[in-house]
Amino acid sequence: MKCISIETSRRDEMIDISMELQRAVTAAGVKDGLIVAHCPHTTAGLTINEGTDPAVKNDLIDCLSDLVPWDRIYGHAEGNSPAHVKASLMGASVTLIVEDGRVVLGQWQRVFFCEFDGPRPRNVYLKLMAS
Amino acid sequence: MKCISIETSRRDEMIDISMELQRAVTAAGVKDGLIVAHCPHTTAGLTINEGTDPAVKNDLIDCLSDLVPWDRIYGHAEGNSPAHVKASLMGASVTLIVEDGRVVLGQWQRVFFCEFDGPRPRNVYLKLMAS
Amino acid sequence: MKCISIETSRRDEMIDISMELQRAVTAAGVKDGLIVAHCPHTTAGLTINEGTDPAVKNDLIDCLSDLVPWDRIYGHAEGNSPAHVKASLMGASVTLIVEDGRVVLGQWQRVFFCEFDGPRPRNVYLKLMAS
Repeated sequence: MKCISIETSRRDEMIDISMELQRAVTAAGVKDGLIVAHCPHTTAGLTINEGTDPAVKNDLIDCLSDLVPWDRIYGHAEGNSPAHVKASLMGASVTLIVEDGRVVLGQWQRVFFCEFDGPRPRNVYLKLMAS
Repeated sequence: MKCISIETSRRDEMIDISMELQRAVTAAGVKDGLIVAHCPHTTAGLTINEGTDPAVKNDLIDCLSDLVPWDRIYGHAEGNSPAHVKASLMGASVTLIVEDGRVVLGQWQRVFFCEFDGPRPRNVYLKLMAS
Repeated sequence: MKCISIETSRRDEMIDISMELQRAVTAAGVKDGLIVAHCPHTTAGLTINEGTDPAVKNDLIDCLSDLVPWDRIYGHAEGNSPAHVKASLMGASVTLIVEDGRVVLGQWQRVFFCEFDGPRPRNVYLKLMAS
């Protein structure tokens, strides 16, 4: 297992970590198999979406804040319940195919770390499975 | 890795691809392990839900359109931001257990390709891991 | 493949199954690899979130019921469409890294079975992949 470290800079932020996944695959010399990325935090998640136009990330962040508003009344005393809900909506991990030494993503796809309660230092764990 | 091709016929559509997953497992002769299906598009996703009553699919499509309305103002200039958001809510991949040569699904479960910005030709990548 | 059985006691309920995953890993003697947990039901799902403060679970359940209300009009005749939609929002499976014989979770993370149409007897399938 490999760990990558991220510094987020805002409360809500999507950070492209695709290169880090590819670097881990290349460093391990895995040709074919799977890579699992796991976010060990409960107020952040991982998702796959378009990385070319930054407006896509902003629209996703805004939509999630519309769906799970900060000004609703929540029971959790720490006051960051919306971040916990968004984490479950995005999910804690992504599983990607590795072929010919490359992480398989569509032409417009990138893997994003989704911060919902930043800014903070964060980690993502990576695990490779050779087939 | 195997690739299956799909032609969607509407803007929003859920297409049952469970048979294609089973065919890939049978063709590869894998008895036990995992199968990962990956949608390489950013305005479509994959999900698992009931396949018997088509009303379930329609209710899911309608609820997602209630949650992420087309008539909201978005930043992404291509005008298909709701499709990107729905893709992240459903997720880009599913990971299923293979046992005794069969893709393990519950009695009512089917694997669906979720089109949110069709109609278009689409692909799904499949990867088998033997255990 | 291993099967664990759960008895849910309410319509909406999140039950921590992390210990069952760890027990399966320990019993199988797997040191490094992956564990996949799969929910074979279409009105329940799996998610990873905070397990310490029970208010987090309640906030998540309440937010999902805000997003997919029971008093909306649905097409599915069985009357449990909101449970189907919530199942897809959470997802049917989680994939976790196993390292040194331990299921890798963040300090506050727990794996939850999410009941959305209980109370009922339910199952979760577990599959281990050694690396």
